[in-house]
Amino acid sequence: MKLIIGNRAYSSWSMRGWLALKASGLEFEELVVPLYDEAWNQRRDGGEFAPSSGKVPLLWHDDTVVWDSLAIIEYCADLTSRDRYWPEDDSARGMARSMAAEMHSSFANLRRDLPMNVRRHLGPRPLADAVKAEINRILTLWAQARARHGGTGDFLFGGWCAADMMFAPVVTRFVTYSVPVPPFAGRYMETVLEHPHVAEWIGQAQDEPWVIEQYEQPANS
Amino acid sequence: MKLIIGNRAYSSWSMRGWLALKASGLEFEELVVPLYDEAWNQRRDGGEFAPSSGKVPLLWHDDTVVWDSLAIIEYCADLTSRDRYWPEDDSARGMARSMAAEMHSSFANLRRDLPMNVRRHLGPRPLADAVKAEINRILTLWAQARARHGGTGDFLFGGWCAADMMFAPVVTRFVTYSVPVPPFAGRYMETVLEHPHVAEWIGQAQDEPWVIEQYEQPANS
Repeated sequence: MKLIIGNRAYSSWSMRGWLALKASGLEFEELVVPLYDEAWNQRRDGGEFAPSSGKVPLLWHDDTVVWDSLAIIEYCADLTSRDRYWPEDDSARGMARSMAAEMHSSFANLRRDLPMNVRRHLGPRPLADAVKAEINRILTLWAQARARHGGTGDFLFGGWCAADMMFAPVVTRFVTYSVPVPPFAGRYMETVLEHPHVAEWIGQAQDEPWVIEQYEQPANS
Repeated sequence: MKLIIGNRAYSSWSMRGWLALKASGLEFEELVVPLYDEAWNQRRDGGEFAPSSGKVPLLWHDDTVVWDSLAIIEYCADLTSRDRYWPEDDSARGMARSMAAEMHSSFANLRRDLPMNVRRHLGPRPLADAVKAEINRILTLWAQARARHGGTGDFLFGGWCAADMMFAPVVTRFVTYSVPVPPFAGRYMETVLEHPHVAEWIGQAQDEPWVIEQYEQPANS
């Protein structure tokens, strides 16, 4: 298997797909294609990412291509086992699937205004009301998952699951931009950042040579 | 089980969730909550849709709530069988899952500029370049799925599957706005519209009393 990803520092969808593949325990190769530079454009225009329209992450497995992070999660669950990705309890799994799907289709303002940069603490910036509402929604979802299904574990549904993988880039954004969160969320965020896969991703991002200036601006620049 | 949906005429995500539940063969109740009218706002503000933030569709199953159409598909697949929703072949299933996920997170311009109205043929309207590009992307995906995995069946991956459910509202939009499509796509669209579940949804939409004027405008009005 081969996973094509963008810059570790900035590509939140790549991070999700990579976390999913790591959770499978299967061997895979990685190809990092820096976002938006000349090589990226050439590869995209040359059709290398087809049929993904130039988006990452992209998983090749023999003649199968899977080009979306949520689809990669389900594909890996098919290859290994559902219980590796989703809670075993029906009710918890229904909620975890709903949260992962909501992350997949929503929070456009947060994603635009607080771009991921796992290498930097850029500090607080003024938040539009739409961004504040999305942050509140995320914190509500985290609180409900923890309260109902967290059990004795430290993640949203106890053990590390696909819902945590989907929200991991949000955790890094909250850190990067010093978003104020209640104590339970702060503890959850620490737990996510200490997960070995998340720590590995962030560690590897430190050594990447590419810098995209627009994602490196502190609040008052 | 109880499924809360919006107007059949206009609510494309409700249609997807309902098609998913119909495919399960399980018994369920329906509650239609007309979008954006007074009752809708009261129910939303009263917390009836929690934890879904007032979005439809919403599936209640005992104490489990599932609030996203893609999550409803997977939840129903868990309750019944994966093969009822996804192709059996690994490669086909990887592609089907990717297409369903792309529909779930993309095509924002198409969704905004060509709102679903399964009751009307409103005729062609000028299409922004971004909408044209999304239409081309969808037609490319349909063509690739049919060519690689259509086999002897008439749907994207042979038999009716979750990818068809996800694109069914797009089929109705192409009809409503007379979007020009190549012959293979026209045949596929006819097949979707003749599927008994799709036909039942559109048939029931005819009798709904609610009319939202902004979704009823022909091109030159």
